[in-house]
Amino acid sequence: MDFEEIKKEIEAFVKEELFSLEPWILNIEWEKKLPKLNELREKVKSKGLWLPQISKEYGGLGLTNAEHGEVSEILGASPYGHYCFNCQAPDAGNMEILIEFGTDEQKEIYLYPLLKGEIRSCFAMTEPDHAGSNPIKMGTIASKENGNYVIKGHKWFTSGFDGASFAIVMLVSDPNGSDPHKKASQVIVPTSSQGLEFVRNISIMGHPGGGWESHAEIKFHDVKVPLTNVLGADGEGFTIAQKRLGPGRIHHCMRWIGMCERAFDLMCERAVSREISEGVMLGEKQTIQNWISECRAEINASRLLVQDAANKIDTLGAYKTRSEISIIKFYCAQVLQKVVDCAIQVHGAKGVTDDTILASYYRHERAARIYDGADEVHKSRLARSILKKYKLDYK
Amino acid sequence: MDFEEIKKEIEAFVKEELFSLEPWILNIEWEKKLPKLNELREKVKSKGLWLPQISKEYGGLGLTNAEHGEVSEILGASPYGHYCFNCQAPDAGNMEILIEFGTDEQKEIYLYPLLKGEIRSCFAMTEPDHAGSNPIKMGTIASKENGNYVIKGHKWFTSGFDGASFAIVMLVSDPNGSDPHKKASQVIVPTSSQGLEFVRNISIMGHPGGGWESHAEIKFHDVKVPLTNVLGADGEGFTIAQKRLGPGRIHHCMRWIGMCERAFDLMCERAVSREISEGVMLGEKQTIQNWISECRAEINASRLLVQDAANKIDTLGAYKTRSEISIIKFYCAQVLQKVVDCAIQVHGAKGVTDDTILASYYRHERAARIYDGADEVHKSRLARSILKKYKLDYK
Amino acid sequence: MDFEEIKKEIEAFVKEELFSLEPWILNIEWEKKLPKLNELREKVKSKGLWLPQISKEYGGLGLTNAEHGEVSEILGASPYGHYCFNCQAPDAGNMEILIEFGTDEQKEIYLYPLLKGEIRSCFAMTEPDHAGSNPIKMGTIASKENGNYVIKGHKWFTSGFDGASFAIVMLVSDPNGSDPHKKASQVIVPTSSQGLEFVRNISIMGHPGGGWESHAEIKFHDVKVPLTNVLGADGEGFTIAQKRLGPGRIHHCMRWIGMCERAFDLMCERAVSREISEGVMLGEKQTIQNWISECRAEINASRLLVQDAANKIDTLGAYKTRSEISIIKFYCAQVLQKVVDCAIQVHGAKGVTDDTILASYYRHERAARIYDGADEVHKSRLARSILKKYKLDYK
Amino acid sequence: MDFEEIKKEIEAFVKEELFSLEPWILNIEWEKKLPKLNELREKVKSKGLWLPQISKEYGGLGLTNAEHGEVSEILGASPYGHYCFNCQAPDAGNMEILIEFGTDEQKEIYLYPLLKGEIRSCFAMTEPDHAGSNPIKMGTIASKENGNYVIKGHKWFTSGFDGASFAIVMLVSDPNGSDPHKKASQVIVPTSSQGLEFVRNISIMGHPGGGWESHAEIKFHDVKVPLTNVLGADGEGFTIAQKRLGPGRIHHCMRWIGMCERAFDLMCERAVSREISEGVMLGEKQTIQNWISECRAEINASRLLVQDAANKIDTLGAYKTRSEISIIKFYCAQVLQKVVDCAIQVHGAKGVTDDTILASYYRHERAARIYDGADEVHKSRLARSILKKYKLDYK
Repeated sequence: MDFEEIKKEIEAFVKEELFSLEPWILNIEWEKKLPKLNELREKVKSKGLWLPQISKEYGGLGLTNAEHGEVSEILGASPYGHYCFNCQAPDAGNMEILIEFGTDEQKEIYLYPLLKGEIRSCFAMTEPDHAGSNPIKMGTIASKENGNYVIKGHKWFTSGFDGASFAIVMLVSDPNGSDPHKKASQVIVPTSSQGLEFVRNISIMGHPGGGWESHAEIKFHDVKVPLTNVLGADGEGFTIAQKRLGPGRIHHCMRWIGMCERAFDLMCERAVSREISEGVMLGEKQTIQNWISECRAEINASRLLVQDAANKIDTLGAYKTRSEISIIKFYCAQVLQKVVDCAIQVHGAKGVTDDTILASYYRHERAARIYDGADEVHKSRLARSILKKYKLDYK
Repeated sequence: MDFEEIKKEIEAFVKEELFSLEPWILNIEWEKKLPKLNELREKVKSKGLWLPQISKEYGGLGLTNAEHGEVSEILGASPYGHYCFNCQAPDAGNMEILIEFGTDEQKEIYLYPLLKGEIRSCFAMTEPDHAGSNPIKMGTIASKENGNYVIKGHKWFTSGFDGASFAIVMLVSDPNGSDPHKKASQVIVPTSSQGLEFVRNISIMGHPGGGWESHAEIKFHDVKVPLTNVLGADGEGFTIAQKRLGPGRIHHCMRWIGMCERAFDLMCERAVSREISEGVMLGEKQTIQNWISECRAEINASRLLVQDAANKIDTLGAYKTRSEISIIKFYCAQVLQKVVDCAIQVHGAKGVTDDTILASYYRHERAARIYDGADEVHKSRLARSILKKYKLDYK
Repeated sequence: MDFEEIKKEIEAFVKEELFSLEPWILNIEWEKKLPKLNELREKVKSKGLWLPQISKEYGGLGLTNAEHGEVSEILGASPYGHYCFNCQAPDAGNMEILIEFGTDEQKEIYLYPLLKGEIRSCFAMTEPDHAGSNPIKMGTIASKENGNYVIKGHKWFTSGFDGASFAIVMLVSDPNGSDPHKKASQVIVPTSSQGLEFVRNISIMGHPGGGWESHAEIKFHDVKVPLTNVLGADGEGFTIAQKRLGPGRIHHCMRWIGMCERAFDLMCERAVSREISEGVMLGEKQTIQNWISECRAEINASRLLVQDAANKIDTLGAYKTRSEISIIKFYCAQVLQKVVDCAIQVHGAKGVTDDTILASYYRHERAARIYDGADEVHKSRLARSILKKYKLDYK
Repeated sequence: MDFEEIKKEIEAFVKEELFSLEPWILNIEWEKKLPKLNELREKVKSKGLWLPQISKEYGGLGLTNAEHGEVSEILGASPYGHYCFNCQAPDAGNMEILIEFGTDEQKEIYLYPLLKGEIRSCFAMTEPDHAGSNPIKMGTIASKENGNYVIKGHKWFTSGFDGASFAIVMLVSDPNGSDPHKKASQVIVPTSSQGLEFVRNISIMGHPGGGWESHAEIKFHDVKVPLTNVLGADGEGFTIAQKRLGPGRIHHCMRWIGMCERAFDLMCERAVSREISEGVMLGEKQTIQNWISECRAEINASRLLVQDAANKIDTLGAYKTRSEISIIKFYCAQVLQKVVDCAIQVHGAKGVTDDTILASYYRHERAARIYDGADEVHKSRLARSILKKYKLDYK
């Protein structure tokens, strides 16, 4: 199968298998939808579309970053697209990290079952008591005793903890180290570890959710794991986190663009089918036309910005592309919010009901402007890095 | 008790009794919160604060429109404020209409139990197949047969139908009438009537809700009610609807301003208490300061616009104030959305959780820009009425 | 004449005498328009409308602040309104200050000719090398020698310096003083003083202007004036500046609202008279309708906010009203810009021509968001003062 | 010279020769700057950079559309860039049209002198009495008599008429024709023709301008030109106009992006050099940082959108790219306005002076949202063409 065929197959799968599940699947509990989703996962495997983002060596399709970006847009049109293809966050990121930094033993125990879809994982980084934008400032500390990390700390927004087999935990392993970028480590912690308290699935926008559709609050009460559970080496936590961010954001943004296109489609379909007075369709009102055109322009701009960043990551590396990566974070998040808002408004009362996917987008994607660094943090960072070029001694 | 005392008492009640119930009450089913709320209603009665908006003759506090506006702002800070004082929509509007247009018999059966809080009611106007902005265009038709209305039709967003004793139904009673403003009637229909199908509580932003926190889809299959169930006279439906709108919107907007002030408070409290780096509070960031100042300005502007409209209704009547009433609808709805959005962003990840009331405001108040006529409809109407003054023959 | 008659007379004057001069008067040099304007000033005097803002004792109409606010809105519809009634900035502010703080001798020499309109004056505060938002930080310094102030410094945006008889100069008279609010003084400096260099009329938006329609850059090279030229007492410069600000901003904002109403009128007249296709008027397009309604709402909100601030100044004093005064500064400036922008867009190509007053508003009123403290400075200050109430130790 | 060298040379020329002329050249009359500009034109010729957009066959550099787009961005940083390289509107468009549709005789008389820079030309399309967005609806009519067109009509915004040798006039040559797209012709009219009245250079934003920096109002009183003066064939006016639009808009938008980059540069330079309080630079304020980052994102998005449209024109042709062409019109115009507005605000009072180029951008580029079809017209058209794909029978 060449890439064009792959895309066509994936698109057909999303439209035929996933869209048809709505709105049923949007409005039931996690456990009830799981059997159906696992059935669909088998279908994906049987079609040879499993793990699009993973190299062929590890059983995936071996797509480039740019190609997986396109796939991510297609999958993003359904909230279950990425899960069915086993490229959902945070598992996809964990797979990448384990492939690049995992020891043979770590791969055996954690990576291979993850690739097969037998287990799920999570990534514990955000903390309730520390501003999320600074991965160096953290309250979760690991001391080293008798060949073990002993972890104390408090995390939340640990997405998918509920039901996961292990967590990759970002923590401070050298609190007194002189180099702030070498204080942190990433450590694999089985979720069954003693002292690891599952406080709750945080209720978000009216739902605590469950499974990978959840965001846990957890506490570490002297949780012990062997020092060999570290990823890469002790002190490399920050470097690994950086690695994760660049390509991850490309796929994230492309997923958002997938949602934008879905919402745009729904908006246009509504505009041509809703009669507002004798023979006058909603789409003939100029306000609606303004929204459609502005959304079209901004979605196109979003995609071009993300593709541009993806190409630069491929050619120059993620570090030299960090300005572009900041840009797509805040630009696309804001476009997503605008497009969904317009699409809802065009639907009138129906827009706030769960009869379409829009209300779900509306409430769940509000977080887009917050997670992975609030938009304001990215804007501030980007501006400072731009201003440095104008004055060498600019702080 | 003079008005200042009344306000103080109500404010204390809202803060002590209602705020303390959050977030518990925001995240449970309707049935579970009902006993607590009814207990609070008794407390309100015992304090002599019941029915602030109703004249003393009918057992209320006899506040003026402007005064009840101020009360409505205070109550609006809690989603349960209006319910506890028995001035929640749509019951409050139904009470008003029954007091002004009800026959003695209608008052006996429907009004008095409503005033006492023994029953609830609903108002069936919006239809899924007709643009809501035009109360004359409706698909629900009543023919007259043997002293009865025989009603066929399809309504949705009938708020609080679930558990209500009766509905006031807006319908077309004279489909071929020459005067479009005399085609409609408002008819009282007991919810237990034969042929009245309760299709569902519509799931909105992830929840179907229940009780008065619900929005039903219902169908009328030849539902029969006696002609004496009409409010006012046959053909007066449109006139009565107009009556309802003006003062109702004042109270609605003041309720929104109550929410704005609540969200504003939460935003400021977060700004002074969240440390973002060594000794630097979130509130020292200029972006946050911009939001606080813009929100303050726009909330103040909202309140002044609503008070101005209220005073004009009192002195000039609702008809001559319809431009001001349109203005507050779209202006305040948009301010509410902005304030809630800023407050969430200031809270970061916590803002999308149900640990504060903000996420609830965010999803439920999205409808503010849609119901009672979408903002765009009001803008269009207002502009046309303004332009008429510039050219007499302007359509 | 009671106030309603005064307003009617003024409104008639503005419409009949001033509107009819456009666009001729908008597009010629200062010197050419001066004879006509001075002729109109005589007319104003003869109608008994001269100096509306000044007490009867000093030969004015004795209007209250709130009343003069209404007059200021009417006059603001023409760029020459305030000049013709001798209440233009900065002369009006200088008159106020001289009345309150001037000695008999200062009044004799400076105030009375100003009231009669025989001379003009200016106010030198802003400096090119210091951020304008902080009246304490200044580079213009006066040392005291032999009964004289000896002034060194550099000012710009000294409006109306060109042709003025004297300047009131804000300067630092006690650079080493411990109380920062007592370092500054306001000193009267005749423009003919030796060492006072008129560098240029700054070209603004394509025109250097002249007369009171100009903004000078000036330098003080050891300019000597007697110590008796101080206003109030030495060290009171800051206090006097504060006095000036509150009521001044009310009148400024009302003048802006006058411009808004003028632009709004032009927009509506265009909307009802421009045919865009067979029988379809521009005003029937929904985008235009949106603009008209949003502008209407925001102009109304502006006026209510200004009136509210004016009433609070009258009852609570300017100091306790400083939050409201900050709000009207940035809120009204932004509304003015929006209304003018919309009105231009509705005019199409004609909107950027000087065939209407809109292009003149557009370029000259861009400064509204900058002068008297940039909007961002006001937002930041206001937010900090709001946050103080949430935490006493907030800086 | 390869393209990279060409760009480098042009960039150096713009920075060294053109930037250094500001602000002198921005604030003087046309006639005074002409000698200097013509001297610079000779310099451009001598460096072999003349006519970048024209094929080598006709004496130009033979750049592709995409390449000239890049050049246009560089030239756009100065208001005199395009003129010095003889690729200014409307001459550049007229050259293109004459190359493609001109007869040998037309080329001899009009094209070659234009290419050499010996004469200037103009393009008369917009009419005061007809909405500019519809090139079919026009009031300028040519009847055919004795081998001549006899033209009656009224045009304005005929840019550069003042001093031009000829105009290409868009007119209706077949008013009763059944095919609306074949009613119009483009006809060459020498400006010295009898009956061609030069009413005025329209004063725009305070200046009537002159030379190619002017926009004339003209009237045709039975102006006679031979039928052989038609471009292409009679009735082809609309087709030729379409030809002109696509690539023209690419260059226009790239010119705007050049201005955006210039304004962005000035904004950043100000941010790092302006101290707002003891040791605190303006660029450390978060509001400024927000503007810098948002502008950076939107300028990047603009460029990518324009490049994408350019590539599509090259591969698919202008007709199939008309949606993308509409998008860049309104998207880039709005970004230009935002960037200039932010840059001015960052400059404070200096921003509205003519000490920088920003005030000139501000007032002259306001028209960007209006000319070549107001943004609203493009949005409306684009939306209708999008909606057609959703419903075949959509009008």
